[in-house]
Amino acid sequence: MPMLFEKIKSEILAHNSYIVGAGGEAAVIDPRRDCRIYASAAGRENMKITKIFETHKNEDYICGSRELARPTGAEILHGSREAFGFGTAVREGETFRVGPLEIEVLETPGHTAESISLLLRDRSVSDDPLMIFTGDALFAGEVGRTDLAGEDRRREMSEFLYASLHEKILPLPAGVIVCPAHGAGSVCGGNISDREYTTIGYEAATNRLLSMDEEAFVEYKMGEQLYEPPYFEMMHRLNRDGPPLIYSLPYLRAYSAREVRSLLERGAQIVDIRSPTSFAGGHIPGTINIWRGGLPLYMGYYLNYEDPIVLVDDFNLDLGPVMRHFVRLGYDNIAGYLSGGFAAWFKQGERMERTGTWSPSDLAEHLDDPSVYILDVREIGHREKEGHILGSHHIYVGYLEDHLAEVPGEKQVVVHCDAGFKGSLAASILQKHGFGHVINLLGGTIGWEAANYPLVKA
Amino acid sequence: MPMLFEKIKSEILAHNSYIVGAGGEAAVIDPRRDCRIYASAAGRENMKITKIFETHKNEDYICGSRELARPTGAEILHGSREAFGFGTAVREGETFRVGPLEIEVLETPGHTAESISLLLRDRSVSDDPLMIFTGDALFAGEVGRTDLAGEDRRREMSEFLYASLHEKILPLPAGVIVCPAHGAGSVCGGNISDREYTTIGYEAATNRLLSMDEEAFVEYKMGEQLYEPPYFEMMHRLNRDGPPLIYSLPYLRAYSAREVRSLLERGAQIVDIRSPTSFAGGHIPGTINIWRGGLPLYMGYYLNYEDPIVLVDDFNLDLGPVMRHFVRLGYDNIAGYLSGGFAAWFKQGERMERTGTWSPSDLAEHLDDPSVYILDVREIGHREKEGHILGSHHIYVGYLEDHLAEVPGEKQVVVHCDAGFKGSLAASILQKHGFGHVINLLGGTIGWEAANYPLVKA
Amino acid sequence: MPMLFEKIKSEILAHNSYIVGAGGEAAVIDPRRDCRIYASAAGRENMKITKIFETHKNEDYICGSRELARPTGAEILHGSREAFGFGTAVREGETFRVGPLEIEVLETPGHTAESISLLLRDRSVSDDPLMIFTGDALFAGEVGRTDLAGEDRRREMSEFLYASLHEKILPLPAGVIVCPAHGAGSVCGGNISDREYTTIGYEAATNRLLSMDEEAFVEYKMGEQLYEPPYFEMMHRLNRDGPPLIYSLPYLRAYSAREVRSLLERGAQIVDIRSPTSFAGGHIPGTINIWRGGLPLYMGYYLNYEDPIVLVDDFNLDLGPVMRHFVRLGYDNIAGYLSGGFAAWFKQGERMERTGTWSPSDLAEHLDDPSVYILDVREIGHREKEGHILGSHHIYVGYLEDHLAEVPGEKQVVVHCDAGFKGSLAASILQKHGFGHVINLLGGTIGWEAANYPLVKA
Amino acid sequence: MPMLFEKIKSEILAHNSYIVGAGGEAAVIDPRRDCRIYASAAGRENMKITKIFETHKNEDYICGSRELARPTGAEILHGSREAFGFGTAVREGETFRVGPLEIEVLETPGHTAESISLLLRDRSVSDDPLMIFTGDALFAGEVGRTDLAGEDRRREMSEFLYASLHEKILPLPAGVIVCPAHGAGSVCGGNISDREYTTIGYEAATNRLLSMDEEAFVEYKMGEQLYEPPYFEMMHRLNRDGPPLIYSLPYLRAYSAREVRSLLERGAQIVDIRSPTSFAGGHIPGTINIWRGGLPLYMGYYLNYEDPIVLVDDFNLDLGPVMRHFVRLGYDNIAGYLSGGFAAWFKQGERMERTGTWSPSDLAEHLDDPSVYILDVREIGHREKEGHILGSHHIYVGYLEDHLAEVPGEKQVVVHCDAGFKGSLAASILQKHGFGHVINLLGGTIGWEAANYPLVKA
Repeated sequence: MPMLFEKIKSEILAHNSYIVGAGGEAAVIDPRRDCRIYASAAGRENMKITKIFETHKNEDYICGSRELARPTGAEILHGSREAFGFGTAVREGETFRVGPLEIEVLETPGHTAESISLLLRDRSVSDDPLMIFTGDALFAGEVGRTDLAGEDRRREMSEFLYASLHEKILPLPAGVIVCPAHGAGSVCGGNISDREYTTIGYEAATNRLLSMDEEAFVEYKMGEQLYEPPYFEMMHRLNRDGPPLIYSLPYLRAYSAREVRSLLERGAQIVDIRSPTSFAGGHIPGTINIWRGGLPLYMGYYLNYEDPIVLVDDFNLDLGPVMRHFVRLGYDNIAGYLSGGFAAWFKQGERMERTGTWSPSDLAEHLDDPSVYILDVREIGHREKEGHILGSHHIYVGYLEDHLAEVPGEKQVVVHCDAGFKGSLAASILQKHGFGHVINLLGGTIGWEAANYPLVKA
Repeated sequence: MPMLFEKIKSEILAHNSYIVGAGGEAAVIDPRRDCRIYASAAGRENMKITKIFETHKNEDYICGSRELARPTGAEILHGSREAFGFGTAVREGETFRVGPLEIEVLETPGHTAESISLLLRDRSVSDDPLMIFTGDALFAGEVGRTDLAGEDRRREMSEFLYASLHEKILPLPAGVIVCPAHGAGSVCGGNISDREYTTIGYEAATNRLLSMDEEAFVEYKMGEQLYEPPYFEMMHRLNRDGPPLIYSLPYLRAYSAREVRSLLERGAQIVDIRSPTSFAGGHIPGTINIWRGGLPLYMGYYLNYEDPIVLVDDFNLDLGPVMRHFVRLGYDNIAGYLSGGFAAWFKQGERMERTGTWSPSDLAEHLDDPSVYILDVREIGHREKEGHILGSHHIYVGYLEDHLAEVPGEKQVVVHCDAGFKGSLAASILQKHGFGHVINLLGGTIGWEAANYPLVKA
Repeated sequence: MPMLFEKIKSEILAHNSYIVGAGGEAAVIDPRRDCRIYASAAGRENMKITKIFETHKNEDYICGSRELARPTGAEILHGSREAFGFGTAVREGETFRVGPLEIEVLETPGHTAESISLLLRDRSVSDDPLMIFTGDALFAGEVGRTDLAGEDRRREMSEFLYASLHEKILPLPAGVIVCPAHGAGSVCGGNISDREYTTIGYEAATNRLLSMDEEAFVEYKMGEQLYEPPYFEMMHRLNRDGPPLIYSLPYLRAYSAREVRSLLERGAQIVDIRSPTSFAGGHIPGTINIWRGGLPLYMGYYLNYEDPIVLVDDFNLDLGPVMRHFVRLGYDNIAGYLSGGFAAWFKQGERMERTGTWSPSDLAEHLDDPSVYILDVREIGHREKEGHILGSHHIYVGYLEDHLAEVPGEKQVVVHCDAGFKGSLAASILQKHGFGHVINLLGGTIGWEAANYPLVKA
Repeated sequence: MPMLFEKIKSEILAHNSYIVGAGGEAAVIDPRRDCRIYASAAGRENMKITKIFETHKNEDYICGSRELARPTGAEILHGSREAFGFGTAVREGETFRVGPLEIEVLETPGHTAESISLLLRDRSVSDDPLMIFTGDALFAGEVGRTDLAGEDRRREMSEFLYASLHEKILPLPAGVIVCPAHGAGSVCGGNISDREYTTIGYEAATNRLLSMDEEAFVEYKMGEQLYEPPYFEMMHRLNRDGPPLIYSLPYLRAYSAREVRSLLERGAQIVDIRSPTSFAGGHIPGTINIWRGGLPLYMGYYLNYEDPIVLVDDFNLDLGPVMRHFVRLGYDNIAGYLSGGFAAWFKQGERMERTGTWSPSDLAEHLDDPSVYILDVREIGHREKEGHILGSHHIYVGYLEDHLAEVPGEKQVVVHCDAGFKGSLAASILQKHGFGHVINLLGGTIGWEAANYPLVKA
């Protein structure tokens, strides 16, 4: 009787979901919306999915429990301290059978009020738990955000989280394997480590947040500077009320260059997913540049849920995973792509725009040039921790559109991030708003330091 | 800087290999011979494989380290207490860097003399180890076999293993994740549990072999009844000297029914991989029946490494994974398959043979029939533990060919295992050797009990 | 500017659909219902699908034009001599642009009243047509059926077809490539040849139906003995009114043996898709056996559109293509499969049934046995053309359930077809209806002749 | 008895190979070197490949017959008027059986001396041929090159080709389907049309080369201006003597930016496969830019067969097909790729180079600027046929390295082709050789005309 245990990761979003099963039955924890993968995993093992758990009402992606429940007939289970528009509320101590396995609910509020953790036991082996699914309560090297319930509830949520961690999770045996809902890179925790798996013992020994006393912990959480992309609000609402079912992945239409121009004029959102160098070498005026790997993290700042979204790439390679990013964030207005790639645009003799690109040495030569305005668009936390280029100003890339007035349009604006990709996004925002002399520092602060130029700290 | 950690499982063989990496480098532990999968995993993460570890000289499959080292240029590392024909010997306490990760060697003899375990640390986080790769020393709920070095060394090896477990592995922090070389179903441990992951703490609390004192442990290990398929000897020799490189997976030729008959006459090994019912309904005389899921476990008892091997299936579906089973066990004499499936045989009007199939109720009616000989071919340990059908005789399926004289040819021989698959293999062996009245009990002891018939214990 | 031309074949059904495109646009002719494949083909070439043609109202599968039009926005075009519930009617001589290509409509009634053929030209090269899509008017070596409009209209339809062939199609230049809607094996034409492509010239020279004069042609068509599976009526109705949209392929649930028994009791349709030998070796009582390769051809005789359909296989390999067969014929009541395969049934100790299997030599020994009733279930045309086993009776496999009274229940019934698969289906029907002594002749007439036994002709 | 007919196309190279089979046997015509695809196609149909035909000694890719013959055991057959180092020579009129099919050899010299065409018949249907595989003798809308045997033999080869076409091929029935060895875009014929299939009748009616008399035809062929990439010589030699076997596709190593710099210093060939805009926005100094779609056509001009080849891409997407291009042209020195893509380079703070990009309007403003040198790198035939930008100079992109002295280094050099990709390759060659002011006209002459600027003819 084989046991099934798989972690299904959604890349970049760094969202972890899990399927566990035995004896012909399986449970899924925190499924994503493009959910065929769980059914396939269960099918390979001749198992049927009978339970779907939501550890909490996610705010960074569309939960897939309704989508998965439809074909499988599985029951959806979630915490009770929030009124969901679907599924069944469960409470502390309730247990569920999945074949010979047992899943016990622990209420672990803090990240959200209704957050639960799930303790997995195989009673045929031992009463000791084997694993815990901690949702956004405990990550590898991190704990969940406590700011999303609003500034006024932040202290209370931080205290809840402290209690959840110290009264519910840490007392578990050291050998319990910890399965969190996010990995490194997620926007749901500031500094999640890149360990694929961790344990209660390893976290107790190494996670510095767990060794703080309550006061220190709460102060730390109150002082965290975290960004909240505007789309979180939409996710929050949809995941509470029940997101729309999609049945199948969207079909991307191939638009000709002529159609793309016309769509652009009628308000479509044209997203250039090429690299910073490719965007710099030439792009459609008025478009924004989010490289494919940055889409799940930044599209939520700059795209709305109404106007059709059209992608521009070099060679239209592997757009399937790209499309899934939009689906996972609920952008069902993803419509298609420029057929033939950006070359189709320039083969029509259309107007193009370029962005300047500088190497670290180029910037070094202009550090004292009064006509140059250096704009750092990294997260403020990174800037403070890693240091900055002397004389640079700071606006976070996600908030740039709200702070354009701070940028002197008459100067050469050299934007930079840590590598060059977010810098290119920022550059595209500036160009879209009419800034005429925009340059992206390729390599960002990483390249700057690699070339032996200094970063300074405030 | 993402960390890569993947367990790559070879189905049925229940062999686990691992790839871990960070910072652009990766290490592979106990790779299998069809090794493109590691290169692909590393490639997806933009990592290069620089180290390959063999935790021990495997006896149940061909090790893939030489095969993987060729294209990647990675270094092969193995224990020092055996003279290998390739790679570099490592010793207790040696450490290796894989990007920012550190791998430390622990010598953990017992299963084999040169067995090592590998401790994984991320020193940037903690000096505590995060994981241990235990090879065949410690499994989930089991420990390694100590009988393969020969009966004369069995006590010594058992003592070694006790020391390795209690002096090297168990003293590690409870939160260390344990990654063994085998999962449930492997022939390398009697009762490996089906937990996909386990920890030092969970094993310390639940693995009954770890709570024995040395004397009890050694006695237990001395008394274990384990089977050793004949092919182990070939694996042992190849894995010590360096197995032949294959470069690419073999190509299976499509043979016509006419060619299969001619191959059979010239000594080819025709393996019928169909289900017990399909074999029973009609088969090529003189062929043996190992269903596709049983190939890695039973082919090593009945196939030689010289004569060409030809497969017979119903519809020739998905022969790729089937072929890999042969590759993993070093059967490079796998040659092809009957084109058109078994139907091609009967469409030629060829001679066929049938096997009888009985339900539990059919057997129940004949329990007292003196012309019926009931033959149990399960492992002796299963028979003793689960009980047997009253009046049944026992010969292990793997050893049947050596014990044919014990079976009365004039009787109706009803063979059974626990389900019906190994029973069909045994039936095919009997028919191949001229037994005329052979019946397979479909459902075996599982079906027998499900139909409410009793099993008795000695 | 590359041209796209692909034939997309639906296996077994032997349905051909086509996608042609150039200059960024593509047209699809006779799409099937699982239609992502067309969108993918167009996407690879950076083309958009703008036109969908239905050459006629198909009766053997669900047309996919509505399904494909939804995501692509393409226009659906069909003949005008039938009132369709969707799409736009086109008439003789109308032309449509697909990029630089031109498609001209020829009305070619005969198979159905509203049948059209489509002539493809590239006017930049020549005014000569390059290809013709003939739907079910002209096949390689055959012409379309004229019986489906009803016996009363058969002569008229045959005359129409003669005119369509001789006035519209054959006058085309000999070098025009002919792309029909069906290949060898289809139920839509008696003897379609297996040529993947053919031409006007090759057909004119080799297709014996084209060299008949009108009278001979019509007489021939009036005398054709073709079967009409009951599901044709459903297809006819759905394809006229517009079949239901499915959006995505169905999800097959894994049912336990216990659930399958319970489903069976409540009227579910359990379809055993295993080979004849596997069915013979043991099967669930009351189930019918249609091997996976025979599903598209025979399910339409024996399955209804209401009760859930559950599959039984040996190893549940590659059920995806199997499921598509159901989708293509509109069986949206396909529900799932027996988890664990038939072994799950016998491991429950459940009741089983067996079918006898005979070799040609077994039957030869019983040719004069009065207790043996030989039943030939091939198509009557095959029986007449190829000959039959002396003394055999005939009932077509598709009509067996309506003719059970003709079969003497007290005898041993030896069913046979040409190979053994349809024979097993017939055997399963007989067993389902209580016949106690049923034997399937493995190899059928092919094996019979291969073993040097004679077939006789009436 | 299904017939198998598949055209297997190697993209961009526009090489067509074919597999035809029936009755359990198949033949392959002109296989490519990465030849698993033929074995898979045959396997799907339960066929064995028994014959491999080479229509001629190819010069644009490595023939795969030896590679395919090894696992399948098939016989290799080729023309007799050249001494091959492998296979068996066949002569006019010889016929070969492939199951029930018959293949007849026609000697059709002209493209090469030993060129053959293959006539396919199904004698059970007709003595008329069904198809002809014409190799490089006849294409859709074109005929083969006659220049490759050397200028001194060109007239003779052209006469041979005329005779082959008019005495062997055109006399065939109009309905014979023509299957040539190349499609549109191939370097093996000047103006091959994009028809996927054609016929004797359609070619006779539309191919203007077939309506010339011998004198006109030979004069036309003598006057053709075709390019011969330097690698043709290597292909010619290898395909005559028997190319090296590779067994499996090469493994691409991931090189760090540091390693790439070091490899570059030691003479490695770094090929930037990004788009023109991406190359323009920043690239590694000294590297050449061949976009992925141009590799099969242009790598043969600029890469040698000794020094390791390393790829630079933006995101390292889908490098598998890219690698195959190298394999097909015999570049077994393909070694790996820059791990992390070009960003890994700039994150190291390494030196970068940029290329200018201009829109048509940018160039239009500088048409009279004496400091601007406009360089057209298209094929001379295109330039003459389509017209050129007033004042532009011409050097074919493939020959640029031999004509650098003609380019004035002190001027701004604006290179252009028809679209912008070959222009970027030319720009990269110039920059590699020290030209300081290099600009690529995005859109080339297509964009130029689309923007309503004029092309002039000499």
